[in-house]
Amino acid sequence: MPLTPLLSERGLIARIRAGVVGRSADLLRGIGDDCAVFRQAGGNVVSLVTTDTLVEGVHFDCRWHPPHLLGRKAVAVNMSDIAAMGGTPRFVLFSLAAPPTTEPIWLDGLLAGFLESVRGYGALLIGGDTVKSGHELVLSVTVIGEAPANEVCYRSGARPGDVVLVSGPLGQAAAGLALCQQGRQQENDAWQSLVAAHCDPAAQVALGRLLAASGLVHAMIDLSDGLATDLAHLCAESGVGAEIDNAALPITAELRSAAAVCRVAPLDWALAGGEDYQLVLTCAADEVTPLRQQAQERLGLTLSPVGRIVKGQGVTLLAGGNRRDISYHGYDHFR
Amino acid sequence: MPLTPLLSERGLIARIRAGVVGRSADLLRGIGDDCAVFRQAGGNVVSLVTTDTLVEGVHFDCRWHPPHLLGRKAVAVNMSDIAAMGGTPRFVLFSLAAPPTTEPIWLDGLLAGFLESVRGYGALLIGGDTVKSGHELVLSVTVIGEAPANEVCYRSGARPGDVVLVSGPLGQAAAGLALCQQGRQQENDAWQSLVAAHCDPAAQVALGRLLAASGLVHAMIDLSDGLATDLAHLCAESGVGAEIDNAALPITAELRSAAAVCRVAPLDWALAGGEDYQLVLTCAADEVTPLRQQAQERLGLTLSPVGRIVKGQGVTLLAGGNRRDISYHGYDHFR
Repeated sequence: MPLTPLLSERGLIARIRAGVVGRSADLLRGIGDDCAVFRQAGGNVVSLVTTDTLVEGVHFDCRWHPPHLLGRKAVAVNMSDIAAMGGTPRFVLFSLAAPPTTEPIWLDGLLAGFLESVRGYGALLIGGDTVKSGHELVLSVTVIGEAPANEVCYRSGARPGDVVLVSGPLGQAAAGLALCQQGRQQENDAWQSLVAAHCDPAAQVALGRLLAASGLVHAMIDLSDGLATDLAHLCAESGVGAEIDNAALPITAELRSAAAVCRVAPLDWALAGGEDYQLVLTCAADEVTPLRQQAQERLGLTLSPVGRIVKGQGVTLLAGGNRRDISYHGYDHFR
Repeated sequence: MPLTPLLSERGLIARIRAGVVGRSADLLRGIGDDCAVFRQAGGNVVSLVTTDTLVEGVHFDCRWHPPHLLGRKAVAVNMSDIAAMGGTPRFVLFSLAAPPTTEPIWLDGLLAGFLESVRGYGALLIGGDTVKSGHELVLSVTVIGEAPANEVCYRSGARPGDVVLVSGPLGQAAAGLALCQQGRQQENDAWQSLVAAHCDPAAQVALGRLLAASGLVHAMIDLSDGLATDLAHLCAESGVGAEIDNAALPITAELRSAAAVCRVAPLDWALAGGEDYQLVLTCAADEVTPLRQQAQERLGLTLSPVGRIVKGQGVTLLAGGNRRDISYHGYDHFR
């Protein structure tokens, strides 16, 4: 989500990161991954902590987002960061800034959805802050999870030769958002899965744990800004490049039919659409089959191989005989 | 900070708290204290976590709040919650929602102050989120600290007979805010300490650690909403009441002179003024002298006895021969 025309989010984060000095033996990972990772003195369990902020008019639109589902989504987008590290969610903090005109019944819906989702992920709300704002609703959520120290999956472990897999169809949430923006939510029953992907996404927490516990995953990230951007982050942190096969991208028939009506190329949604909250991971080529089997048998989830890690840098799309650099062509580009 | 005319912050928090179901053996304290307290499996060190959100136009005004000091304040208000539990700050997360019109140089100042303050408290910035907002700047900060499990100071330990102490002068920040609002910041050199108390407050982290390690403190809270409100919270969590002696309240000469010019009763600022970030604590009557000595000798800080814990409930002000219930007459009342 670009911060200002003058200053990109990536640029700002890089500047913040550069300004951080000091180290701690208990801090295993700071800025630059889905979660920060720290441990309490001497333990072999680590804590994972992540925070995400949703702003009205930027991240959500109350005209079509029911408060109940918005509450659920505010939780899910954070749970997805825990999932991407292979963690188990434990504790949640919720900061809510709301204008004085906010209806109590709307807030009730928001809170009910929020708490329902927290429970659904097996976590507990343990604190937060509620403040008045002038104009906008701002939801800021922090989730703390944990994982055995030797099972945490970072963005930085991808190696040339690895296969890149994604945990579900791509672009579904972007398609759902476009349908909502155009008032077409009700036009086709088949599109309900797209609208749900936008309004009520689910974090792949169980899959993240399974993958982390398998010991076979080299690197993992969740899809919040689109494959072109999030895989570029993973590549940058790992010091490698990636090639993506156009024909291998999991794109649903519903997305194709919505794309036709919205006059969008399905590939744009699949590569640059944000908020899918699927997992992207890499593993050695000869571990792909056992890993896919585990996900299928234990969770009924299909991992789709979509490309490979290569030496170099950046994300390249292979389509027919053509090669195109798509690094970071996520939400920014999509606008 | 009242959320809406229809719904008070206390009412909303009570409803959220009521909606939380489930427990965890690793969660020592959830909603209802300055920080949540949890431990990693099997450890005797606990983690403290707190989050506070500052909204432009509600919690700060860019017309007189320099970005550097605002960055420092966003950190300090959270550090104060760690201090109030007796913890050592470790890790910080920073979520920033900023409108597209935000000047990069302003953001640079904010970040510089933020990082300087984080370092000053011996902590590390480990993550966060930067997003675009439509109109308002919203700063949401989470701090994670730690403490030996048997040294954490909760709000809930006050006992009838305890003495109530405060760690510094009261109402300074409210006086500074009033001077800024009236454009009188430069009018009197003696008032610079009041303006600084509002724009650049310091959290009493070293004192909090000293008090917690002493083993003599029964209950503690920080002053964010004014003594009448914050002591009422402490009493409610402890199931006791408190009596405050009007004549014992530490009120500075600068505050009195500013109050005369602003035509405010000094007592209103002292009891109902928010954002002082001093500590309020209770201890047994015969431990007051050793505790005050420790604070004076090791940190040069003066703890002022201002009243006592009694059976019953609520906070009563004793002035001359009069008794007045001032429970929760904090920021709400002050408006």
